[in-house]
Amino acid sequence: MDLKDKRVDYNKFELVEEHAGKDPYALFNLWFSEASETEPEPNIMIVSTSHNDQPQTRVVLLKEVKDGDFVFYTNYQSSKGKALEQNVKVSILFFWRDQQRQVRIEGIASKVAAKESDDYFYSRPKESQIGAIASSQSDELTSRHALEDKFKTLEAHYEGNAIERPAHWGGYAISPKSFEFWQGRASRLHDRLTYEKVDAAWTRKRLYP
Amino acid sequence: MDLKDKRVDYNKFELVEEHAGKDPYALFNLWFSEASETEPEPNIMIVSTSHNDQPQTRVVLLKEVKDGDFVFYTNYQSSKGKALEQNVKVSILFFWRDQQRQVRIEGIASKVAAKESDDYFYSRPKESQIGAIASSQSDELTSRHALEDKFKTLEAHYEGNAIERPAHWGGYAISPKSFEFWQGRASRLHDRLTYEKVDAAWTRKRLYP
Repeated sequence: MDLKDKRVDYNKFELVEEHAGKDPYALFNLWFSEASETEPEPNIMIVSTSHNDQPQTRVVLLKEVKDGDFVFYTNYQSSKGKALEQNVKVSILFFWRDQQRQVRIEGIASKVAAKESDDYFYSRPKESQIGAIASSQSDELTSRHALEDKFKTLEAHYEGNAIERPAHWGGYAISPKSFEFWQGRASRLHDRLTYEKVDAAWTRKRLYP
Repeated sequence: MDLKDKRVDYNKFELVEEHAGKDPYALFNLWFSEASETEPEPNIMIVSTSHNDQPQTRVVLLKEVKDGDFVFYTNYQSSKGKALEQNVKVSILFFWRDQQRQVRIEGIASKVAAKESDDYFYSRPKESQIGAIASSQSDELTSRHALEDKFKTLEAHYEGNAIERPAHWGGYAISPKSFEFWQGRASRLHDRLTYEKVDAAWTRKRLYP
C-alpha cells in the first residue's frame, strides 16, 4: 500500500494567540462546540495508557468535564483498567477531522467516586447496563453467539428486576497537566499552542510545527 | 460540560470470523479501502509513544505499508523522535468514524533507510520540503510571524536551488506485534478480533467488548 502521493492541504482555520486566550478550558470548549456542528460524536476521546513501556491506545467517549477533569466510563478489569492500576499517567487526543484540529492532553487518571459511577450507570438505557454486565471486557470470548446468548439470558433475568452497577464498572477522571492545540495549516506550517500548568496557573507557548 | 445523555448507536457493520480471515493485513486493506470511500484522509494514523512512563499521542499520516511495516515521516528531533530514542515500543490507532471502526496495533518502531527517506522527501512539493527545513519541530517559537519570515527567507534562498533532505528528517517503520479490529455494534456489544504474532504466524481471537 503506497500513499506517498496522497496530499490534503489544511486551510480552513488558523490559531492565533489573540483568539486563543489564556485558559485552555475556554479554548477546548470553543473547539468542542465548533466540532459539535459537524462531528456525529465530537466526544470521541482517544486515551493512551502505558505499562511495561508498552503504550496502548483506544477510543472512549468523554462523558463530562468536571472540576477540570475529563471523565469517561469503562470496565475497571479491562486492559485499560489493568494498565491504569500500574501507571496512572495517560495521554488524550481529540481529533476533529472537519476542522483539521487536534487537542493533545497529558495528565493523571484516577477513579471517580462510586456515587458518580452509580449516577451515570443508572442513567444509561437498560440494554447498555446489561451489555456492561454481559461483558468480561478484554477477556477471550469463544464466539459472537456466546455473547448474544449471555445478553439474552441476562435480559430475561432482569426483566422487571432492577440492575445493580457491577463494582468493576465505573469512571475515570483525567486531570490535565498540559494541553496542546494543533490547527492544521498550509505547507505544513501548522499552528501549535501549548498550555502547561506551572503552580496553579497555565503558561502558554507556541511550538514549531 | 456534560455529555452523559449523548448516545449514538453503532449499527452499520459487523465483524465475523468467516469474513475476517486469518491475515490481519488483508483485513486492514479491506477496511482501509472501505474507509477511503468516505474519509478525506483514511491514512490519519494516531501514534502513541511512551517514555518515563508518560504516554504521548499525536496524529501522523501513514505513507506506506511496506514489508508488513507501517511507515510515516517526521522530524527525528521532534518530541516523538526523542521519545522513540528512549523507547521503541509504540501503539497505533486508526479510527474511521463513518464505518464505526477502530484498528489498534502494537509494535516496534525503527528508522527507515536514508535512501527511502530521500526518495520520499524529494517526491514532496517544494513548499513542504521548505516547511520541513523551516521547522525546528516541537521547539518553542516566538511567534507565527517568525515562522512565516523564516519560510519566506528559505523560499527566496532556494529559488532555483536544489533542496537537500535535512539529516534530522526521515521515516519510521512500525512493525506490528498485534492487531485488534474493533467494529462498533448496538447495545455496546461490539465485535473485537485480535491477531497476535506467535512465531511467524498470526493467531486470531475474539475478545469481550
